[in-house]
Amino acid sequence: MTTAAPAEDTRTRLLGTALRLFAEHGVEGTSLQMIADALGVTKAAVYYHFKTKAEITEAVAAPAIRELDHIVSEAAKQRRRGTQVDYLLEGFVDLVVRHRVLVALFSSDPGINRAIENSTRGMEGFKNALIDILAGPEPDISSRVAALVTLTGLAMTGGSPDIAQLDDESLRRELVDVGRRLLGRPRRHHD
Amino acid sequence: MTTAAPAEDTRTRLLGTALRLFAEHGVEGTSLQMIADALGVTKAAVYYHFKTKAEITEAVAAPAIRELDHIVSEAAKQRRRGTQVDYLLEGFVDLVVRHRVLVALFSSDPGINRAIENSTRGMEGFKNALIDILAGPEPDISSRVAALVTLTGLAMTGGSPDIAQLDDESLRRELVDVGRRLLGRPRRHHD
Repeated sequence: MTTAAPAEDTRTRLLGTALRLFAEHGVEGTSLQMIADALGVTKAAVYYHFKTKAEITEAVAAPAIRELDHIVSEAAKQRRRGTQVDYLLEGFVDLVVRHRVLVALFSSDPGINRAIENSTRGMEGFKNALIDILAGPEPDISSRVAALVTLTGLAMTGGSPDIAQLDDESLRRELVDVGRRLLGRPRRHHD
Repeated sequence: MTTAAPAEDTRTRLLGTALRLFAEHGVEGTSLQMIADALGVTKAAVYYHFKTKAEITEAVAAPAIRELDHIVSEAAKQRRRGTQVDYLLEGFVDLVVRHRVLVALFSSDPGINRAIENSTRGMEGFKNALIDILAGPEPDISSRVAALVTLTGLAMTGGSPDIAQLDDESLRRELVDVGRRLLGRPRRHHD
């Protein structure tokens, strides 16, 4: 096949390649030229889709942010407190595990933060929505601290190179177990 | 008094001022000129002590890194496993709480990471030493994950603006409690 790939395809490939290069060289250490080279296209072709690296970083993070938004909304719809916590915890862990390469970049690159900032909820909105569900309405300080440790600890651990060798299913199980212990949820039965 | 302050004093004041400005404007958003202005000295006076902002960032982080090194060594000397974990957990939390402004910068600035990298143990050395004590010798994956969530979660929460209004003593107690729960240590009796 020698026909050019459709534009949407190039955009998707571009974002996948950008994430791979970001993970390897850091966002800082990746240039538009490097992305173009890795894709085998001209820099002009990259420019056609994105004007700056910041735009690329935001676009790389966008799908995960949309998913998180969806998880939060769905969790809030659950009738019982326990079900809300379980839904959010499992959804959050699943998201962290599936996007671990992206999550690993989160702490080192302000571009990812910017992507969250520019989303509908904004950074504060997300944090508050997540904590509201995990810590419950009018939480005492212990519940608030536990919710914060859960969110930050699970995200940082999920993105950590220390457990990169762990398969998705095992990592998911370990993180959910730790989260349940932190949030005072009963132990799950593993079969 | 119109006599010039001794050099050591200026250096200490410089680092305190730098940390304050870093917290306010980010490391990125703070220039040597801003530090000089805030101190009421010339930029040349700042240069006398530090040639680059990177050197300042490293010097700002150095005392906390030395303290952590000391805590790890002392914890390793304790005879019983439980005492080692308790010693490290309490020392780590105390460090995070006393240096919360610095800890808050940690996740957003590579300069702090560089300071750890340049320390005797290096980043890997620190992480391994901390995990070895918290997870125990030849840990299973659950203990390793719990140790990682503990370290990252406690540090990120301690540095979080969400609990900035909490006094040191309360924050210390909350974080140690969460850490004990995560590491499977028995609950402490608060009096």
